[in-house]
Amino acid sequence: MADGEFDRGLALRRHMFGSGGAETEIEAASDFTRPLQELVTRSCFGELWHRPELDLKLRSMLTIGMLAALGRPNQIRVHVKGAIANGVSRAEIREILLHAATYGGLPAAVDSFTAAGEALAELDAAQ
Amino acid sequence: MADGEFDRGLALRRHMFGSGGAETEIEAASDFTRPLQELVTRSCFGELWHRPELDLKLRSMLTIGMLAALGRPNQIRVHVKGAIANGVSRAEIREILLHAATYGGLPAAVDSFTAAGEALAELDAAQ
Amino acid sequence: MADGEFDRGLALRRHMFGSGGAETEIEAASDFTRPLQELVTRSCFGELWHRPELDLKLRSMLTIGMLAALGRPNQIRVHVKGAIANGVSRAEIREILLHAATYGGLPAAVDSFTAAGEALAELDAAQ
Amino acid sequence: MADGEFDRGLALRRHMFGSGGAETEIEAASDFTRPLQELVTRSCFGELWHRPELDLKLRSMLTIGMLAALGRPNQIRVHVKGAIANGVSRAEIREILLHAATYGGLPAAVDSFTAAGEALAELDAAQ
Amino acid sequence: MADGEFDRGLALRRHMFGSGGAETEIEAASDFTRPLQELVTRSCFGELWHRPELDLKLRSMLTIGMLAALGRPNQIRVHVKGAIANGVSRAEIREILLHAATYGGLPAAVDSFTAAGEALAELDAAQ
Amino acid sequence: MADGEFDRGLALRRHMFGSGGAETEIEAASDFTRPLQELVTRSCFGELWHRPELDLKLRSMLTIGMLAALGRPNQIRVHVKGAIANGVSRAEIREILLHAATYGGLPAAVDSFTAAGEALAELDAAQ
Repeated sequence: MADGEFDRGLALRRHMFGSGGAETEIEAASDFTRPLQELVTRSCFGELWHRPELDLKLRSMLTIGMLAALGRPNQIRVHVKGAIANGVSRAEIREILLHAATYGGLPAAVDSFTAAGEALAELDAAQ
Repeated sequence: MADGEFDRGLALRRHMFGSGGAETEIEAASDFTRPLQELVTRSCFGELWHRPELDLKLRSMLTIGMLAALGRPNQIRVHVKGAIANGVSRAEIREILLHAATYGGLPAAVDSFTAAGEALAELDAAQ
Repeated sequence: MADGEFDRGLALRRHMFGSGGAETEIEAASDFTRPLQELVTRSCFGELWHRPELDLKLRSMLTIGMLAALGRPNQIRVHVKGAIANGVSRAEIREILLHAATYGGLPAAVDSFTAAGEALAELDAAQ
Repeated sequence: MADGEFDRGLALRRHMFGSGGAETEIEAASDFTRPLQELVTRSCFGELWHRPELDLKLRSMLTIGMLAALGRPNQIRVHVKGAIANGVSRAEIREILLHAATYGGLPAAVDSFTAAGEALAELDAAQ
Repeated sequence: MADGEFDRGLALRRHMFGSGGAETEIEAASDFTRPLQELVTRSCFGELWHRPELDLKLRSMLTIGMLAALGRPNQIRVHVKGAIANGVSRAEIREILLHAATYGGLPAAVDSFTAAGEALAELDAAQ
Repeated sequence: MADGEFDRGLALRRHMFGSGGAETEIEAASDFTRPLQELVTRSCFGELWHRPELDLKLRSMLTIGMLAALGRPNQIRVHVKGAIANGVSRAEIREILLHAATYGGLPAAVDSFTAAGEALAELDAAQ
């Protein structure tokens, strides 16, 4: 059953961030990073994200909102791509970041807009 | 037009937090608190919350997620009531707080669960 | 195996916070709080705290340091009692809070000292 | 010379927070709280606050701004009294909190307004 | 009247950050970034920064203090230039960052000193 | 006596971060950065880190835990090297970061793992 959760988490990471991202990170994991990869893959994407009360699109929206309020632009960059894969539109991402500007402060939101804009430009360039 | 935004924000505050809350705060406003009441009523609830790309239910969910990640239990207490008024279910509130436990840390989420539980108990008692 | 982790987590919560604390919270859990109690008992105290590379005393010290740096006095109040149960001395708690004053800022540390002092006074009164 | 800094810090705490505050805290200091009282009195109020490039009024304004942005209402309550003693007007305190609403987010600012309003009401009642 | 606020905000951004900065950002604004540029230009620099109780120099000092306490070095880099334009001296910036080291913690202040030093070096190089 | 504390702090910085780091920073200090170098060298590494109740290894562990919970990866990069010099093992660093993932949130911990991995790779390359 635990393997089921790992596999399910890996599949979701692959769906959200591309097959390169998740698998490269897991294959490249050293003794130092392996427990984090386990935690992210099994507990976060394999369990939390699969709880039925909130669907993937909504979890992506909430995640971006929390990351923007907390001022974590590196993770915004990653999760904007995942949000697009989960069906969040660019206009919705923009509105979540504006909402975060009021609740988490303008500086965190400005950094988040910059990171999100870069992630969206990378998605455009990849097409 | 600006008055329209104030009125619209006041109506939303009344809808979300009860007619007592918003009006009492605005009537009781002193020189010290009046500009904050203006900001909250006009810019936040009159403008931001009425932007069309995200509906009220979704904005309530995002707000609770951000407040939980930031560890602001006083505001969780207020916004849980507003979220119920905007159609968010108790199960959805619970899941948002669990999501925040992973993204903002367990201590902020535990404080948020306590505050949310108190707000829900007050709603039950008021019925 | 999952039950083993829940039981192990429950036993650790009982050891650190008294049999009243953990069991009362778990027995009183409603649909709203039960998933949080599961998360805290199984994942946090049943898994994370039992990873072998850091012993319980060290994890208590780290937890207090993180809570003080983040400015979460409610959780400081709880974890000071757990730290004493795990063999951390009062002088060590004091030094961790002083260390946090430099790394997380004086205001968070002052709030943490107040909460820790109250928890220690409750422990004294209980004897 | 070190005693000079302690005495200077104690005098400033007495000036800002009333003779009760500082002296009561220092006299009541236990082994647990004494090093914090030393740090606050000597390093913070005896050294930092006496550096010549920023005067006391400006340091009070900056302190309130930082506390509001960080969301530390307990310390806002204390420092609003100190700010009044250092010549900051109520209108200036209000504007600093409004400025913090934009830079640190609305929830932290709302908590700070509440705490500041209570501190100002206590000052009024004491007269 | 709203246009007046936008124009006033744009003029202040031009004064503080150079004509390149504000205008380039506004002209380059896409559907994704335009609402943020509106918010920054109209609400933040057009309204908040023009409230009469605190002058521009004081608002620059408060902004740097808040950004340093919150640990937002990207925005420190921008606002150090704005602060110089608003008449804040280098010695005053240094003292605000030292004050923030005590209230927001040493790590946030060290990152802020690095960012501020880079911004000042760029100003020197531009002359 | 004050010089004794500065010298002791400088020696500890040299021990933890290499003779290049501390001395280069202090020699390169300008009017702008000198007071910060004084604060870091004398108060932080000369006084706080030498308080006897917690040894250097434990202070390194606490520092990494606080930095990870606060999400300050630049300082993680520096302090991972210092922690290795103070006898903290790589497995212990990993476990502290995992502990921080639960208490400060996963995004801050992921950024910290990245920074720590880079610092460890630099240490490997330097040998």
